[in-house]
Amino acid sequence: MEQPRRIIGIDPGTRSVGYGVVESRGSSLRFLGGGCISANAEEIASRLVTIHHELQIVIREFQPQAAAIETVFAGNNVKTAIAIGEGRGVAVLSAAELGVAVFGYEPALVKRTVTGSGRASKEQVQQMVRILLNLGEIPATDHEADALALAITHVNRDRFGLSGIKKSPSPRCGKKAPRFR
Amino acid sequence: MEQPRRIIGIDPGTRSVGYGVVESRGSSLRFLGGGCISANAEEIASRLVTIHHELQIVIREFQPQAAAIETVFAGNNVKTAIAIGEGRGVAVLSAAELGVAVFGYEPALVKRTVTGSGRASKEQVQQMVRILLNLGEIPATDHEADALALAITHVNRDRFGLSGIKKSPSPRCGKKAPRFR
Repeated sequence: MEQPRRIIGIDPGTRSVGYGVVESRGSSLRFLGGGCISANAEEIASRLVTIHHELQIVIREFQPQAAAIETVFAGNNVKTAIAIGEGRGVAVLSAAELGVAVFGYEPALVKRTVTGSGRASKEQVQQMVRILLNLGEIPATDHEADALALAITHVNRDRFGLSGIKKSPSPRCGKKAPRFR
Repeated sequence: MEQPRRIIGIDPGTRSVGYGVVESRGSSLRFLGGGCISANAEEIASRLVTIHHELQIVIREFQPQAAAIETVFAGNNVKTAIAIGEGRGVAVLSAAELGVAVFGYEPALVKRTVTGSGRASKEQVQQMVRILLNLGEIPATDHEADALALAITHVNRDRFGLSGIKKSPSPRCGKKAPRFR
């Protein structure tokens, strides 16, 4: 009998972070939980602290083996992109720190995987998430629906050996030793 | 006698993170330490874990009251901006989690504050950091020099009541209660 695997999907942000956890066993897929973390503080620094803390509570609770976290969607506004990156970095950190393998998927791939079209509407994604996970109703928030779609995408890609981990070249602090430590 | 204050400057990144700590007392400024954290892993997730861990070691060691962290410098490449944001988010989190107040300064303001020109070269910044902190030589890496320039900028702005904390509007998870938790 194949071991069940738990996947958490995370729709990152600096104010609202959606999450959704699914269990995959063979070809079956089961909804375990989901929600949306809301960070209310005025300062982004405090919001990132809240998100890190709350996400790690969820991850400790569900103990997923992998996290599927949305990559790049920023249009062409660089200032927005930095803020999106800040939220994403904290989400990636929250999972990786707890030993969860992190995978990134672009929004169009997620839409294509769950609906068949890379240009599906939010409503189509929500409905397909409901159907694929056999839920009584669509997820309570867009963020949770997106997170569950990410988790489903990872299960699907992983099944066919297509999941991709981000790689990158070597570091470059410079050659000299640090002045301190 | 005025209480001394410790400021950590952080030049964020996803491979190299510069840091520099200064102590300010009245109009005097003293160098306490600085260096560059190098994250070598291929996966960005592991690098962010390293950066978070090492930055918090430094912050616990120096116990600064404030952190000055570079904001936005991404040209117009959105993909680069997301990565920069990821590094910045983890730096902001690392300080805020340990109760350190976080302030953001743009590169041009930092250059202007330490050299008098917003378009100063790296070399000019390094030399002014050396002079202002009374160092025997310029900092070992660009990243450390930039971090020290950030810390100096904060001391200077703070002295004249000009330091600005990032503010932002209220959250928006959506109205419905989370499905779980």
